Amino acid sequence: MQSTLLSRRDIEFMLYEWLDAEALNRRPRFQDHNRETFDAAIDTAEQIATDLFAPHNKKSDQQEPHAVPDGNCLRVQIVPEVKTALDAFCAAGLMAAGQDFERDGMQLPTVVEKVLSAYFTSANVSTAAYIFLTVSSANTLLKCGTPEQVRRFVEPMFAGKFFGTMCLSEPQAGSSLSDISTRAEPDPAAGVDGERQYRLRGNKMWISAGEHELAGNIVHLVLAKIPGPDGKPIAGVKGISLFLVPKFLVNADGSLGERNDVVLAGLNHKMGNRGTSNCLLNFGEGKFQPEGKGGAIGYLVGTAHQGLANMFHMMNEARIAVGLGAAVLGYTGYLHALDYARNRPQGRHPAQKDPAQPQLPIIEHTDVRRMLLAQKAYVEGGLGLVLYSARLVDEQRSAETPEAREHAGRLLDFLTPITKSWPSQWCVEANSLAIQVHGGYGYTREYNVEQFYRDNRLNAIHEGTHGIHGLDLLGRKVSMQDGALFKAFAGELRKTVRKVRGSVGVPAHAGAGLPAELAAELASELLAHAAALESSWQRVEQVTLALYAAGDMNKTLANASAYLEAVGHVVVAWIWLQQALLAASQLPEAKAADTDFYRGKLQACRFFFRWELPKVEQQLALLESIDTTTLDMQNAWF
Amino acid sequence: MQSTLLSRRDIEFMLYEWLDAEALNRRPRFQDHNRETFDAAIDTAEQIATDLFAPHNKKSDQQEPHAVPDGNCLRVQIVPEVKTALDAFCAAGLMAAGQDFERDGMQLPTVVEKVLSAYFTSANVSTAAYIFLTVSSANTLLKCGTPEQVRRFVEPMFAGKFFGTMCLSEPQAGSSLSDISTRAEPDPAAGVDGERQYRLRGNKMWISAGEHELAGNIVHLVLAKIPGPDGKPIAGVKGISLFLVPKFLVNADGSLGERNDVVLAGLNHKMGNRGTSNCLLNFGEGKFQPEGKGGAIGYLVGTAHQGLANMFHMMNEARIAVGLGAAVLGYTGYLHALDYARNRPQGRHPAQKDPAQPQLPIIEHTDVRRMLLAQKAYVEGGLGLVLYSARLVDEQRSAETPEAREHAGRLLDFLTPITKSWPSQWCVEANSLAIQVHGGYGYTREYNVEQFYRDNRLNAIHEGTHGIHGLDLLGRKVSMQDGALFKAFAGELRKTVRKVRGSVGVPAHAGAGLPAELAAELASELLAHAAALESSWQRVEQVTLALYAAGDMNKTLANASAYLEAVGHVVVAWIWLQQALLAASQLPEAKAADTDFYRGKLQACRFFFRWELPKVEQQLALLESIDTTTLDMQNAWF
Repeated sequence: MQSTLLSRRDIEFMLYEWLDAEALNRRPRFQDHNRETFDAAIDTAEQIATDLFAPHNKKSDQQEPHAVPDGNCLRVQIVPEVKTALDAFCAAGLMAAGQDFERDGMQLPTVVEKVLSAYFTSANVSTAAYIFLTVSSANTLLKCGTPEQVRRFVEPMFAGKFFGTMCLSEPQAGSSLSDISTRAEPDPAAGVDGERQYRLRGNKMWISAGEHELAGNIVHLVLAKIPGPDGKPIAGVKGISLFLVPKFLVNADGSLGERNDVVLAGLNHKMGNRGTSNCLLNFGEGKFQPEGKGGAIGYLVGTAHQGLANMFHMMNEARIAVGLGAAVLGYTGYLHALDYARNRPQGRHPAQKDPAQPQLPIIEHTDVRRMLLAQKAYVEGGLGLVLYSARLVDEQRSAETPEAREHAGRLLDFLTPITKSWPSQWCVEANSLAIQVHGGYGYTREYNVEQFYRDNRLNAIHEGTHGIHGLDLLGRKVSMQDGALFKAFAGELRKTVRKVRGSVGVPAHAGAGLPAELAAELASELLAHAAALESSWQRVEQVTLALYAAGDMNKTLANASAYLEAVGHVVVAWIWLQQALLAASQLPEAKAADTDFYRGKLQACRFFFRWELPKVEQQLALLESIDTTTLDMQNAWF
Repeated sequence: MQSTLLSRRDIEFMLYEWLDAEALNRRPRFQDHNRETFDAAIDTAEQIATDLFAPHNKKSDQQEPHAVPDGNCLRVQIVPEVKTALDAFCAAGLMAAGQDFERDGMQLPTVVEKVLSAYFTSANVSTAAYIFLTVSSANTLLKCGTPEQVRRFVEPMFAGKFFGTMCLSEPQAGSSLSDISTRAEPDPAAGVDGERQYRLRGNKMWISAGEHELAGNIVHLVLAKIPGPDGKPIAGVKGISLFLVPKFLVNADGSLGERNDVVLAGLNHKMGNRGTSNCLLNFGEGKFQPEGKGGAIGYLVGTAHQGLANMFHMMNEARIAVGLGAAVLGYTGYLHALDYARNRPQGRHPAQKDPAQPQLPIIEHTDVRRMLLAQKAYVEGGLGLVLYSARLVDEQRSAETPEAREHAGRLLDFLTPITKSWPSQWCVEANSLAIQVHGGYGYTREYNVEQFYRDNRLNAIHEGTHGIHGLDLLGRKVSMQDGALFKAFAGELRKTVRKVRGSVGVPAHAGAGLPAELAAELASELLAHAAALESSWQRVEQVTLALYAAGDMNKTLANASAYLEAVGHVVVAWIWLQQALLAASQLPEAKAADTDFYRGKLQACRFFFRWELPKVEQQLALLESIDTTTLDMQNAWF
């Protein structure tokens, strides 16, 4: 049976045929790599994901982590398969997949690292979350921490001995980080890095992986406020600093020291993602008194009062990771639905009136094919967007020239809110369609797809809600650097349009294996898609100008979510056109199985351009009219 | 605090101001009723729903029914609050709310009965399902059963002593009922109604309320095939007959007799609707031997081989009930989100840069208002559609002339697939937005909205999937009776358009309480909506003709789901325009609180016409082009 995690053929298409990951091997950082080393890493990931992550996905959903009393505090119990899987992951050295060789890492490009993540997340998003949080917080510390912090904390994290968290939200401050009230006061006692030692007091909310016994220690990255000279907290984001707060203190020789005063106050019980412990944590409430004084011991990371900036260093990558999670949950749901549709007999064609004829596999029903094709268009479009963004991270870090690195950075900044949000919206829709293909079975927990639907619904909420990313795109990214990000993307989109116009119809398209009629049909179709894409983008440009001409930021931003959705659809149409152009160019020389694969790409692209892209005109027209329906609505009228 | 089940003000608006339920009191069947008796029934329903149904909604989700061994079979344990709630419901006589006075019923119109259901279902869809199934199956038996069947089985059902089920699906035959294989053979022994006694053998799947101990007996309505003269089952739907199969036989004096051979084989575990036992049932496997011979005893209902037709007598009503469930789950989610948004402080306006200022309730954020307004537009539009359809049931049964009854029947038949499907799609979307308004809290089971989202997802699957209703609408209803149903609806829609044109701008609209400027603005807005609705409907007509001109039913029906969705949006726009016209006409004389209410209706209508109705053009254009993207997709290309 084919894998129901991801299509390896599609991964190869995206990584090697489209995004040319092998080109990275010409750069110094990746010169020891080649397609074989990439594939070996992917093989390992696929194997561990299949053998150890996927099998307990349902079990850890049904037997979620629970808190039990433990002395004067609470500990969290988790089904043992989670630790077994994570141990195997760490033993394979995968926590350091993207790190330097000299840190015992694999020094893989980000785009390959994301493919590895894709396997673990599609197999078991809850278990994979422990990895993602560790890598993200370790990368932040690597960027902003002192050498001593790196030595004592980050190295054990990449070795899989310590796990990490990000502690941002508080009960009274969810999306509004400026309103956090956790305080950090300088501790005159010497600690790691002397004057960097602080004492923290406060409560944090929604802390994924905040408490567990899966690793020897937990390294919390905590946002807190240092009081100003008058002893009062500084209001707003300026007051926020970043701290490293370990569950256990770490001695200079790396051995674990005293228990720090970070304790579990309770667990949240979520609709999905149930296998990841999601915690309320109390800092410095006095359950423990490390080194004899009240407050949890924390070490300042980076410059004081630059906490948000330090935390946001890793935000692009964290947001790509959320988009990736959404895309691959959609992807595995699609493969499950496809497998079901090929094997479930039910009903007959409308024209077949003879009930004595055997029933057909439901994939033969056009509406089931519609639901499968929509899923394919959403999940391969979404995964394509995510891997394209990951590839930009590699460009930003390793491209030959400063100009190329800057260009990649602009594209990445522009695309990030979309890369995070588009899969979080449309790949949940794919999961809903996967349920629908299964009929009543899909609605039961005896099958897998309902869990994907529940798991995936988180992605439009965490790492910035949909609404927040709408504001980020329209209110910041579009106008940043005098529109340089926006223009950088526009240039790429038009480059693709020109590429289509320059390449279709040339003789290569009617190669030995492709009948002239089909070649002509595909060429005219690609040209039509290119025209549609160009025209949609022109509309985006017009509408963006109209929004900024509104003269009132409340009006400009009122419908930012619709803007995010419309631009998202245009971006994914562009991703599809790139994939389709490539598929068309490969088709003439393709072998039989590949022919089917490329035809599928072309048909999914056609679906996207026929069924999806036209949706944006209604949103763009609404935006262009500076519609104030929601702005004018009054609280009392509800 | 306001009820979070439904808005009573809105119910009154729909029932009395819009649908004129009081007009029914002029008809003989309802002449003993008046607004006071309707309100008293609604008061009772709201009270019992609030006090006894809502409080255990979460508990029966978390502690779902489970099967325990009981002698040679299984019994189902259910949290005791379910029986307490249902007992109170039955004691209030509500199972017979729509039945004749002479059957100890309340003889209420269907539209009022649906309002009562709305309260129970919004409070607890799982517990309410036991009611809905009993009423539906009892109504079917009342229509098709013999007097003796009615006396022994139906009367105890309406008295709340027996509950009912509908047993259609089988493991190998979900939507494809012609493929069921349960067999019924005539039983020479005398039983209830002598020659009507049969012996049944087979397995049924997805039987909601199929086993429990909430009532003294369970009356199963079962589709099964009687062998033809050659002893073989007759293939296809022709072979299907309808049987009444009780869990316990019933003696002539009404006392319970032997246990019948219907046993629980297992329970399904669903994503939502967990409080309703959902069963695999085995008929005649030999666990019991009632009256000494193998097979479960069943009594033929109505004419042999007319099983589907008999079952479908009640299908319109069952489908309205599904639409109602979807709408009110959306509705209660909306009210929960509204309450949360008014009370949760978070963040500040974009222009407010001072972090020392207090945080605002999130309802002040435009994007939150968008999400609330969208929910309002979906759930009040959806509930309006459902109650309009229920009002048609009353017209069909009690209108003065045969022409009026026939007209109502045509409208009802046309609207039924939409009334079932539109809320099942858009009110799940409302539930998703209710989660989003709650942010991370909404994703936890500590809050209520995630359960509504899970519960509501069933509605696009049962009582005919979305795809099935697309085929029903485009393949049957549109062309039925030479298009008479379609034309009947078109006439009603145009009547509303004319009504808008005839009434806005007349002096009443600028009454004492309404400034002339606002009156003029509302008038021009309503005229614009009327024009948009008329033009959308013209497009539906053009596209329908184009689809039927395709000359190949496979092409005509390929995109039937898109047709269902597009026509659904036009229909709901029409529902909204009716509500808005009424609100505008009431506004001049309205008291203060009512002014807010009517302004809310007008703004939600505006939202629907600005944000939603324009979506259909893309679908209609696709349909008109006879798009074959899904039809052309090949199995091997996936």
